[in-house]
Amino acid sequence: MKKLLAEFFGTFWLVFGGCGSAVFAAAFPELGIGFVGVSLAFGLTVLTMAYAVGHVSGAHFNPAVSFGLWAGGKFTAKDLIGYIIAQVIGACVAAGALYLILTGKSDFVDIGSFAANGYGELSPGGYSMMAVLIAEFILTMFFLLIILGSTYPKAPKGFAGIAIGLALTLIHLISIPISNTSVNPARSTSQALFAGGEFTAQLWLFWLAPIAGAIVAGFIHKAFFDKD
Amino acid sequence: MKKLLAEFFGTFWLVFGGCGSAVFAAAFPELGIGFVGVSLAFGLTVLTMAYAVGHVSGAHFNPAVSFGLWAGGKFTAKDLIGYIIAQVIGACVAAGALYLILTGKSDFVDIGSFAANGYGELSPGGYSMMAVLIAEFILTMFFLLIILGSTYPKAPKGFAGIAIGLALTLIHLISIPISNTSVNPARSTSQALFAGGEFTAQLWLFWLAPIAGAIVAGFIHKAFFDKD
Amino acid sequence: MKKLLAEFFGTFWLVFGGCGSAVFAAAFPELGIGFVGVSLAFGLTVLTMAYAVGHVSGAHFNPAVSFGLWAGGKFTAKDLIGYIIAQVIGACVAAGALYLILTGKSDFVDIGSFAANGYGELSPGGYSMMAVLIAEFILTMFFLLIILGSTYPKAPKGFAGIAIGLALTLIHLISIPISNTSVNPARSTSQALFAGGEFTAQLWLFWLAPIAGAIVAGFIHKAFFDKD
Amino acid sequence: MKKLLAEFFGTFWLVFGGCGSAVFAAAFPELGIGFVGVSLAFGLTVLTMAYAVGHVSGAHFNPAVSFGLWAGGKFTAKDLIGYIIAQVIGACVAAGALYLILTGKSDFVDIGSFAANGYGELSPGGYSMMAVLIAEFILTMFFLLIILGSTYPKAPKGFAGIAIGLALTLIHLISIPISNTSVNPARSTSQALFAGGEFTAQLWLFWLAPIAGAIVAGFIHKAFFDKD
Repeated sequence: MKKLLAEFFGTFWLVFGGCGSAVFAAAFPELGIGFVGVSLAFGLTVLTMAYAVGHVSGAHFNPAVSFGLWAGGKFTAKDLIGYIIAQVIGACVAAGALYLILTGKSDFVDIGSFAANGYGELSPGGYSMMAVLIAEFILTMFFLLIILGSTYPKAPKGFAGIAIGLALTLIHLISIPISNTSVNPARSTSQALFAGGEFTAQLWLFWLAPIAGAIVAGFIHKAFFDKD
Repeated sequence: MKKLLAEFFGTFWLVFGGCGSAVFAAAFPELGIGFVGVSLAFGLTVLTMAYAVGHVSGAHFNPAVSFGLWAGGKFTAKDLIGYIIAQVIGACVAAGALYLILTGKSDFVDIGSFAANGYGELSPGGYSMMAVLIAEFILTMFFLLIILGSTYPKAPKGFAGIAIGLALTLIHLISIPISNTSVNPARSTSQALFAGGEFTAQLWLFWLAPIAGAIVAGFIHKAFFDKD
Repeated sequence: MKKLLAEFFGTFWLVFGGCGSAVFAAAFPELGIGFVGVSLAFGLTVLTMAYAVGHVSGAHFNPAVSFGLWAGGKFTAKDLIGYIIAQVIGACVAAGALYLILTGKSDFVDIGSFAANGYGELSPGGYSMMAVLIAEFILTMFFLLIILGSTYPKAPKGFAGIAIGLALTLIHLISIPISNTSVNPARSTSQALFAGGEFTAQLWLFWLAPIAGAIVAGFIHKAFFDKD
Repeated sequence: MKKLLAEFFGTFWLVFGGCGSAVFAAAFPELGIGFVGVSLAFGLTVLTMAYAVGHVSGAHFNPAVSFGLWAGGKFTAKDLIGYIIAQVIGACVAAGALYLILTGKSDFVDIGSFAANGYGELSPGGYSMMAVLIAEFILTMFFLLIILGSTYPKAPKGFAGIAIGLALTLIHLISIPISNTSVNPARSTSQALFAGGEFTAQLWLFWLAPIAGAIVAGFIHKAFFDKD
């Protein structure tokens, strides 16, 4: 139970902080934080909560991470469903909090596309479904290789939270123009829920590609790097 | 005494560095540091002084942090008042130093709103009192969850200063447009003192919301994550 | 074999993340990540993979690094060729992946200069061949001094990945306008392969200067700092 | 001797990287790194070389730091002069290297003000001599408090390089508009040497204020925080 609460809080923070920085501050008149700021914010949500509750739940905050760790033999199948439910609920409650705050803006009209992910016409840079699929697959695969590698017993102790958090920053620096960056189905779901319409129809890709990439990484790690 | 001096210096640095970067450099012609720079500056004030005097005073530099640690059972009530006085004095002396430097600018006219916090018409993005209250409450609550979690005996040793400092950076990346970001009553007080007028009248919120969020985090940590 | 796979993945990530951030996001309309974002991205590719596979292969991801470590007496000559092949293949496969994704952009015309390195008319800021040669030599020399120094037994344990990754960020902050920053022949080769033309003709410099700088650093370290 | 070489290389890197990023990249057309990039660059020069040669020489790279450590009782008077000479030479050789590279730019006319420090009309934001004096004094004082505190035996082991390097980043985020940020007489001297004219005439302040601030910090640390 303590673990699920940690996953709830962690994923809440990931969406509140990452998507929140995008929604509130990315394009704020003149001094906005831009994509560098949003990239930093997403990474720091994970870095901070990894040190805060990593010793409680392992700090997944992302269904793809849970799947990848399972494929890599570091997480039991029976905990998978509970973790994923806690993550999705945390993400959606955070999206609700963002919505609540945003509606308090004096010139609020509507939420636009929130911080939703998309491909084709919904891709910030107009990237095709196939391009987004490849990008999300590769990025999540490397995200998991970094998670599995930096938490490996032979890696320097204590530094995994930095490596993993900043990996998420890096992933956003690369791919916000491509897909608005998901690599996390819970994060995508929470935003599509509010953005609605076509974003919901595209949600399948942001479950499929990250989880597939994560599982492949798990198998690669198990086969090649996890054998001493 | 040594502890109070550490809190004085730490909070001085937080305001001098964080608010100073906003006042001097945020919108400097053409190459200004923007909100990303200010966010980084605030976080680095805490990161740097956490390693410098964390072993002396615990590195609170913020009345809400002291309250939250007390609620979480990590700080004694009898030290609360001394710490808060040292923090507020440190913050106000720093604001005075900023004022002194700023008046040495050749084209100085007045300090404008300094780096004061506000809601409604004084919110940078025009966010309502309720929106600011919710945001400050949630942000300070997570700030304390990160502080309490990353300093927990089971968390990796030595990394708390990084996690906590960068948590403050993250919090600013999210919320400068909302409230100019407080999560710290001493910081807000020091700026309102110089900005005056309506900013002073709104100061109550920046004591109430951060301290309430911090105390709730203290209770959550105590109830769920502090039990082995 | 495991080591070569680690070098393959690491150099793939360096090019996919570093060059990818440049190609996809550097100049993205209005909110692009700019040179700061690209600098951060390159550094984080190395930081993240250093923690992920540093304990497997030593995390070179760069022929110049392998040469420098050999000159410094920390790497055996017989492994040199294998490492370099794995690095160049990893870099080129990553460039292919970038190309594939980029062609999925709805308004794709051609790749332009990709993220290729150049001097003279191909230098972003119009720097001469000699200026680029000096810059690449000095920068790679210091990169290796940092690598050899921060992994030295007397240096703090575990921090090398942070120092080395952020050294690459720093190197990019300095020199993107000069040469588009190489300090890595594998990275340069992968981009010239796709950019073609004059970029290929200039490739010799981005093998010569970084490797020469790295070897000099190796000798300096061995002669002065590696003797207790 | 090994120590002086380490100080030479470290201060070379500080000036080549910090001032170099300012000269080459700060205002590069459209995608320049701005003050955030320059601030990051200065800090990373120290962070990287602290891990590379900190175990050799203590990683001062700055006459004010050497004076401050002496005042704090952590450095012997007899080494002071040698360290300062090595630092100033390293800084000036780096400035020469920057000059050499810069003259290779196809549209090179003159170096302008290089990355020199100044007050009054030479202050980027037009800050008076007194404002610059106060700012440089306070900033160097806190720089030394952070150095002395984070290297104190009770502080977490190994993290000082991060805290000290990022302190320099923070200092630049605050004060580039004020004085172009010195806190380091060797850095100031190297740039004034090339910028010449009035910059040389103002150099006294950038020796006086940083060293005074550093010495006061040394005494404060010794009196209050160095007593168990």
